[in-house]
Amino acid sequence: MNPFLQTRADTAAELGETLLIEAIRQWLGDASPPAPHGIGDDCAVFTLGNQSQALVTTDPVLWGRHFDQTIAPGDVAKKLFKRNLSDIAAMGGRPRVAVVSLLLPPFTSLEWLRDFHLGLRDASRHYHVPLVGGDVSQTDGLLGACMTLIGEAAGDRILTRQGASRGDHIFVTGRLGGSRLRHHYDFEPRLAEGQWLAARAEITAGMDISDGLAKDLISLIPRDCVAELHPEAIPLSEDAVEAAATSGRSALHHALCDGEDHELLITVKKEAHLDEFLLRWNQTFALPLTRIGFLSERASDDETLLLRGLPSDMSEIHGYEHLR
Amino acid sequence: MNPFLQTRADTAAELGETLLIEAIRQWLGDASPPAPHGIGDDCAVFTLGNQSQALVTTDPVLWGRHFDQTIAPGDVAKKLFKRNLSDIAAMGGRPRVAVVSLLLPPFTSLEWLRDFHLGLRDASRHYHVPLVGGDVSQTDGLLGACMTLIGEAAGDRILTRQGASRGDHIFVTGRLGGSRLRHHYDFEPRLAEGQWLAARAEITAGMDISDGLAKDLISLIPRDCVAELHPEAIPLSEDAVEAAATSGRSALHHALCDGEDHELLITVKKEAHLDEFLLRWNQTFALPLTRIGFLSERASDDETLLLRGLPSDMSEIHGYEHLR
Repeated sequence: MNPFLQTRADTAAELGETLLIEAIRQWLGDASPPAPHGIGDDCAVFTLGNQSQALVTTDPVLWGRHFDQTIAPGDVAKKLFKRNLSDIAAMGGRPRVAVVSLLLPPFTSLEWLRDFHLGLRDASRHYHVPLVGGDVSQTDGLLGACMTLIGEAAGDRILTRQGASRGDHIFVTGRLGGSRLRHHYDFEPRLAEGQWLAARAEITAGMDISDGLAKDLISLIPRDCVAELHPEAIPLSEDAVEAAATSGRSALHHALCDGEDHELLITVKKEAHLDEFLLRWNQTFALPLTRIGFLSERASDDETLLLRGLPSDMSEIHGYEHLR
Repeated sequence: MNPFLQTRADTAAELGETLLIEAIRQWLGDASPPAPHGIGDDCAVFTLGNQSQALVTTDPVLWGRHFDQTIAPGDVAKKLFKRNLSDIAAMGGRPRVAVVSLLLPPFTSLEWLRDFHLGLRDASRHYHVPLVGGDVSQTDGLLGACMTLIGEAAGDRILTRQGASRGDHIFVTGRLGGSRLRHHYDFEPRLAEGQWLAARAEITAGMDISDGLAKDLISLIPRDCVAELHPEAIPLSEDAVEAAATSGRSALHHALCDGEDHELLITVKKEAHLDEFLLRWNQTFALPLTRIGFLSERASDDETLLLRGLPSDMSEIHGYEHLR
């Protein structure tokens, strides 16, 4: 069967990413267990032998999509490592070993490849995650690498996207937006923070922000809730402000919609003592942790906008419910 | 840095696969532990928590390289799964969970994608290996998928490529050659056989044949040995004979050089009772297990041909020693 069609009809492009992933889930059926044991969380949780909880995640870097000639090859390698580390961080896990599958056009320069691998080596040492295996495949043009990272629970508990309830507070680490300027490769996976949060009973759910706050937050909202956001509280990065100066969009719009923040987005039990919680956080981390809203009651099943409180000129990012 | 050069000099193509992998190992340095805990065996062996021995392997299928429009999408999916399963089989392991990273040009047909995923589902059910996660990335043209498969030791022991000694017998499962006709996607990973072999004390080393007997066997030969082959004993597949009718090469040449056999290649202790060993094998499996030679003393360090006994017109495949 020829996989390639000449027009958009009946192609992956026509369906779009969200619906395609939903279609894949349906095609796989019981071959992919419900999240977090299958598709749908930052990592998949599985067990090996009598090991309690292991984690696995996979993310690539591809030429033209995740990097280009403006990014040093060592930074491409670090981005690959850190994208995957951020998924482990999102569940409060500890990374253990990684494998890399290289996709290599024949005329790729050895200088680029050397610097890329020295970047992998540096990240491997820095995060104490050995590169235990891989594969090299020749391609006709695409340069890239797929990493799979295996981790384990750091403590008794793994933080998942399920678990939030009505009334829970919504918090975010760091500052958001403008990642395209440099943050998309120059960021720090929130491993220590994720492990700390997973160990706190008042945290009900968590994830990392990779597709943008407005899109990702939808995954944390239970069926009977909407997210009531406080736009003035959303922490703007300097890069969001800088990007807004030339993009024609506001810094808030950048913070809501730009991808690759790789900050943690969490929900905190409504009964939690927020003052004490934040005090403990601030005693442990210099990184800001900011309350940006809460989970509110959904008016009816007909209410399809899942984000409330945003300025009226941002209606296109009010977070329409996708299939779940 | 621009990764792409206009001419072959100083590119991956100039170096070639074997030297490139050696260069990668050197660049990674201590970030990749010695095999089997790092690059260099069919799987990498690692531990999680107090779990004894876990296994991980990664292999892709890429358009134009591992499949084309003549292969049904379901068979492409099964090939992807079985390539990785064969690596677990080679070490006598039990496969546990898999993740898949899809590389998708926008105009990929949904019909192809559906049939591909139904193939993944069928293989997942058949081998009891859930697909726990993945990623979908858009590309400008390359269609493919990278799978990472995680497994564990089935018993106390994992079979590695290290462990053979002078005098050991060389055995191979099944029949070899001509895989291009159909076997490259229509094969059975030797999981039960690998587990059985790993549990037998007389087996000293093992691997799966993916690049062809002549090339792969080199990995099992210790420094002070050469492989003395009995060409007349090498089991030829019907496809090797069929391929020879039109290729201008002999069926033996196909059996020695064709890739993607995915049979097991093992060494057996020289002191083993071969009659009893083969009797047990034949009581358990219908698949042939054939002695094709033994490990003989290397005349001197200057002897660089590592395969002896082949017809003199096959000198180009005598298995030159590569860097180790």
